[in-house]
Amino acid sequence: MTEDTTDESFLADFHHTTGYGATPAGGIDRQAGTKEHGDVRAWFRRRARELGMTVTIDGLGNQYATYRWFQGAPSVLTGSHLDSQPLGGRFDGTYGVVASLHAAARVNRDVRAHRITPHHNLTVVDWFNEEGARFAPSIMGSSGMAGIMDRDQLLAVTDVKGVTVREALESIDCLGSDPAPVVAAYAEIHIEQGRLLERDDTAIGAVTQSWYTQKLVVTVAGEQSHTGATVMADRHDALVAAAKIVVMTEDIVHDYDDESIVTSVGELHVEPNSPIVVPREVRFVIDLRARTVDDVLSARRTLLDGIARIAEERDIAIGTEDFDVRDIQRFPLAGVELTEKAAADVGVDVRRLETMAGHDSVAMNRIAPSVMMFIPSVGGVSHCEREFSTDDDMLRGLDVLTGVVTRLLDGALDDVAPGEPLHSAER
Amino acid sequence: MTEDTTDESFLADFHHTTGYGATPAGGIDRQAGTKEHGDVRAWFRRRARELGMTVTIDGLGNQYATYRWFQGAPSVLTGSHLDSQPLGGRFDGTYGVVASLHAAARVNRDVRAHRITPHHNLTVVDWFNEEGARFAPSIMGSSGMAGIMDRDQLLAVTDVKGVTVREALESIDCLGSDPAPVVAAYAEIHIEQGRLLERDDTAIGAVTQSWYTQKLVVTVAGEQSHTGATVMADRHDALVAAAKIVVMTEDIVHDYDDESIVTSVGELHVEPNSPIVVPREVRFVIDLRARTVDDVLSARRTLLDGIARIAEERDIAIGTEDFDVRDIQRFPLAGVELTEKAAADVGVDVRRLETMAGHDSVAMNRIAPSVMMFIPSVGGVSHCEREFSTDDDMLRGLDVLTGVVTRLLDGALDDVAPGEPLHSAER
Repeated sequence: MTEDTTDESFLADFHHTTGYGATPAGGIDRQAGTKEHGDVRAWFRRRARELGMTVTIDGLGNQYATYRWFQGAPSVLTGSHLDSQPLGGRFDGTYGVVASLHAAARVNRDVRAHRITPHHNLTVVDWFNEEGARFAPSIMGSSGMAGIMDRDQLLAVTDVKGVTVREALESIDCLGSDPAPVVAAYAEIHIEQGRLLERDDTAIGAVTQSWYTQKLVVTVAGEQSHTGATVMADRHDALVAAAKIVVMTEDIVHDYDDESIVTSVGELHVEPNSPIVVPREVRFVIDLRARTVDDVLSARRTLLDGIARIAEERDIAIGTEDFDVRDIQRFPLAGVELTEKAAADVGVDVRRLETMAGHDSVAMNRIAPSVMMFIPSVGGVSHCEREFSTDDDMLRGLDVLTGVVTRLLDGALDDVAPGEPLHSAER
Repeated sequence: MTEDTTDESFLADFHHTTGYGATPAGGIDRQAGTKEHGDVRAWFRRRARELGMTVTIDGLGNQYATYRWFQGAPSVLTGSHLDSQPLGGRFDGTYGVVASLHAAARVNRDVRAHRITPHHNLTVVDWFNEEGARFAPSIMGSSGMAGIMDRDQLLAVTDVKGVTVREALESIDCLGSDPAPVVAAYAEIHIEQGRLLERDDTAIGAVTQSWYTQKLVVTVAGEQSHTGATVMADRHDALVAAAKIVVMTEDIVHDYDDESIVTSVGELHVEPNSPIVVPREVRFVIDLRARTVDDVLSARRTLLDGIARIAEERDIAIGTEDFDVRDIQRFPLAGVELTEKAAADVGVDVRRLETMAGHDSVAMNRIAPSVMMFIPSVGGVSHCEREFSTDDDMLRGLDVLTGVVTRLLDGALDDVAPGEPLHSAER
C-alpha cells in the first residue's frame, strides 16, 4: 500500500475529483444530492475501500470510511464535504476530504508498521450538504449527526423544485441506515477562503473560533401594477424598496472597523418577475457576520430601523425574520496548540486566525473536541470558479493533518471538553 | 338570436370568462399558451360559433371569428386579447374581446334586419400573447400579423423553461394555418389602467396616441465569492450595483413633470442566487415610457451616465442594450372623432387621452386606420388581482363600440391612412 501514501498519489486523487461536475471555467458544480455529487461520492467509497477502509452511510447521507482496529471503540473523525456551490471552486471541502483519506492511509501504514499504537479507531467522513445552496440550511449533515438539528425535519427540506432531501439522497444512493460513529475527537483541514495566510506568507492557520453569524429573511409586500399605465404616485413597488435595503445592507459596514464585519444579500426573488409588471413581492436573505456578537446585533438593529423607515416612507409592508443564528464557537485551545505542534514537527509556519465562514467542524465541536486548520487561498477568493490553492500548500496541509490525526489517536484531546453551543437562544 | 344581444347576455359571458384561470384573490392567471389560456380560447371559439360566426386561426395563434357577408372582401376587425399577466386582472384584454363578440352579434342582428348595409365583413379577433409575460416581446400576435415582427422568429421565442411559442401554441391547439383577414379598419376597447377617466367622471376615453417607450436590458457582471469568508474590499457584488441602478431608475422621474414619465424595473434575475454566495451576475430590464421622445431619450442618457459611474466606482462590468423601442403612435384623428360621435349618439361622456401602455391597436394602426377606446378603471390599478371596472361602465363601452363598428362597416375610415411607424430606427 506504499504507493497510496505518496505525495503524488494524494495529488492524483485530488486532481481526479475535479473532473466530477467540472465547469468550463475551471470550477465545479456539485450541488448536494445532484448526479455530479453522487458520482464523486461513489468515487469516495471506491477509493476508501481500495485503501482498506470499511464504508458506512448514516440516515442523513453522511459517508464514513473507517480503519477499525478495535471493536466498539469510538473514532477519531477527520473529513469535510464534497458538495459545492453552483459554479463553485474545486478546493472548498473536497481538499479536506481527499487530504483526510490520505492522512488516514498514512496513519494506517504507520499502525501496521507498529510505529503508532492508536487508542481509537480512525474514520474519514464526507458530510452531506455543507454548502446549503440547494437545500437550506448549510452544514446540514454534520449538524444532524451532532443532534443540533432534527433528522426528520432535515430530510423533509425541499429545494426550489420541491424535491426533498430524502428524495435527493435516495436518487444518489446515499440514504443509509448505518449508525454514525461515536466521536472521540474531530479534525478538519480546509482552504482559508480569505487572504490572511497569503498576506503573512504562512502555510497553516490554526483556527481559534468562528464568527457570530445570522441571517435575516426580508419579505417586501408591495402591489402588482402596470409598468406602463400606473403613474408613479399610485405604485407600491416591492423591488425599489428591496433595492434600497440591499444598498443599506452594504453601507452599514462603514459603521465598523475594517474587516470586522461582512454583510451580504446573496439570494433575492422577485414576483411576478415580468418586464412590464411593477413587482408585487420581493423576498431576500441578508447575511450578517462579525467577529463580535455586539457588532452583528447592532448592525441588525440599524437594518431593522432602516427597513421600518423605508416601509413607512413608501407605504409598503416589510416583514423580517431572524434565521440561522449561529453563536461564536471557540475551538479548544489544546487543539489549536496541537496544530501548532504538528506544524512545528514538519517545519511549517503556522498562525492563529478566526473563521468568518461556517464549517462542519463548528457543528462537530458541539459533541467532541475539534481541531480546525486552514491552508492558503490564492487571492482569498472562494465560492467561485477561480478559487485556487497550490499543490505545495495542499501537501504541507496534508503533512500537518497527518500529524494532528496521529496525536488525536494517541489521545491528545481525550480529556478536553467540546466547545460552546452553536446556536444562540432566540432573542 | 335576440337573447344574445342583451346587456344581460354580455355580462353573463364576461363574468363567465373570469372562471378560466381564476385566482383566490379574484384575479386571473392565464399566461399565453398555458392550459388556462387554452381553455378560455376554446370557449371563445364555441361562443363565436353559437353566435353564427366562422372561426379561423392563423399561423401565429391569432383567432378570428367572422360574419362573412361577402366573399373575398376585407374585414372590419374588432377585438383584444384573452391572455393575462401572472396574477393579473379579469378585465385587461378580456373585456375587449367579449365586448367585441357582443358588438358583432348586435351589428349582425341589425344587418339581418336590414337596418344596416355593411360595406365590409366583420371579424372579432383574439390576439395571441399581448402581455409578453411568458414570451417576450409583448403585443406578439398582432405585431406578427401586421408584419412588424417575423413569424418564424416569434414562433422560436422561448419561455424561461425553454418551451417555444410554437410548442405552447400546439399544446393548446392554437397553431393554425388559415390566412389572416385583410383589414379594412380596426377597433379596440380596453380598460384605461389609469385614473384619468375616473378623476373626470367620464365614461369613455378616445385615445389619441401612445407614449414613447423603450426597454433597456442591463447585465451586471460581478464576481462570485463567499458571503462569509470574502472581506468587503475584495468583493465585486453584482447585486449591490444592480440595486443602486434600480433606485436610480426610480429617482430620475423627479427630473420631469408630474405624470409625464414612468420608469420601472419589473424583471430581475440573480446568479447563482444562493444565500451564502455574493452574486456573480444580475440581469434586469428597465422600462422607460414618456409622453415625449425627448424625455425618454434624456432619461436613458441620465441612466447610462449613472450606470457608467457605478461601474467605475465599483470596478465592475455593466452592459446595457436597447430593446423593444416603440415610437409614439398617433391614431387617426378621424377615428378619435368617430368615437366622440358614437358616444354622443348613445349619450355618454367622452374625453381624449393618451395611452401609456402598449396595445394590439398600436400594431394594427400600422396597417389599417385604427380606433382605440378606454373605459374607466377603478383606482387606476391594473396588472393585479384587484383590477376592477363596473358593469355599467362595461355596458356603456359596449354601446359605444357597437356604434363605432357600425360606422366602420359603413366605410367611415375607408379613405383614412394607417398611423405612424411603431418602431423607431436604431439609434
